Amino acid sequence: MSADKPRIGIIGGTGALGSGLARRFAAAGYPVVIGSRSSEKAAEVAAVIGHAAEGMSNAAAAAAADIVLVTVPFSSQAEILSEIKPHVSGKLVVDTTVPLMPPKVARVQLPPEGSAAMAALKLLGEGTRVVSAFHNVAAHKLHKHDTIHCDVLVFGDAAADREVVVGLASAVGLRGLHAGPLANSAAAEALTSILIGINRSYKVDGAGIRITGIETGCGS
Amino acid sequence: MSADKPRIGIIGGTGALGSGLARRFAAAGYPVVIGSRSSEKAAEVAAVIGHAAEGMSNAAAAAAADIVLVTVPFSSQAEILSEIKPHVSGKLVVDTTVPLMPPKVARVQLPPEGSAAMAALKLLGEGTRVVSAFHNVAAHKLHKHDTIHCDVLVFGDAAADREVVVGLASAVGLRGLHAGPLANSAAAEALTSILIGINRSYKVDGAGIRITGIETGCGS
Repeated sequence: MSADKPRIGIIGGTGALGSGLARRFAAAGYPVVIGSRSSEKAAEVAAVIGHAAEGMSNAAAAAAADIVLVTVPFSSQAEILSEIKPHVSGKLVVDTTVPLMPPKVARVQLPPEGSAAMAALKLLGEGTRVVSAFHNVAAHKLHKHDTIHCDVLVFGDAAADREVVVGLASAVGLRGLHAGPLANSAAAEALTSILIGINRSYKVDGAGIRITGIETGCGS
Repeated sequence: MSADKPRIGIIGGTGALGSGLARRFAAAGYPVVIGSRSSEKAAEVAAVIGHAAEGMSNAAAAAAADIVLVTVPFSSQAEILSEIKPHVSGKLVVDTTVPLMPPKVARVQLPPEGSAAMAALKLLGEGTRVVSAFHNVAAHKLHKHDTIHCDVLVFGDAAADREVVVGLASAVGLRGLHAGPLANSAAAEALTSILIGINRSYKVDGAGIRITGIETGCGS
């Protein structure tokens, strides 16, 4: 609840990934606002999360937040980004969108822009502070208290903005890594389809990734 | 040297990745033929590797092999695949090409076909038995005797062909994983640029990847 922590708005915050991140940010002492198409549903999820989390519409959450996390399905990305666009000027926007195209979600199908992150930048406008991250973490694991063995690859054209998100990953118990410009987001987005396929092939429920060969204080 | 092991032809086998794989396959008892533009250079590398490895031209190596590994730079992929195409009919072709485009090798730049693997399939013709793998392993590590902490994501449209390559990965001390259809190769190819960038950012020389959350007998 420290007053010096930025307020985090989670757009699509009633979904599995959004609510999992909200839960962990709230527990880590960040002020959290949950956005949803339905402000009633957002308020319900906020009440369950506790820690003074608040629920409101997506637009209101974007307006109230210092940092805006977008956790919506690919099929809703364009519409919801348009909705929050007037409220994110100058703010760091962390897009988590993975271009899964049902029913073949285990097949890599990158959009014409190259990645969902580049699509987000195009939609929000050049010069927007877009970073992408949190593509590969299994949402259900965020809802548990266990340690998660998954790295967060962080993409963005500004190193300082990436650094903020590396810190956010750390705050929720994950290891964030600088992974280059926003265009590189294609790698992590594509990898999510691989992990879904591996979950099926190897009959597990939360395959993740770890970068080996570096030591940054949280594992190998 | 067991007679029941397939003969592995390594196209571009004098390069860092090719010679590293050749060294490990030869040490594991596979008959190895090294192909190169220069058959003299191929013979020299074969002599260094020992274990009765042979050196010859790329076309001759493809013709002599049961399984053909392609380890050439992206800029040479089309030309060399055309050269070996007459000799790989019905054979398993394992393409390791990563679409790195110097000087920005740490930037993901996937080709119009979606991946180098799909480009290979297009060049060799639909119906060719193309599998892609070994994109993420640091070549210099193959030349040492140490354990390598890196998984090999194996892509291909035929599960039986992928399974052969999962076995080849295991033979050289790596963990191979079924990672879906050939189109999914984009993920591992893109990841190589990420790893190159991480090597620079974190000042290490051999970042790799590990899939977490599964147990297949070689680590978590």
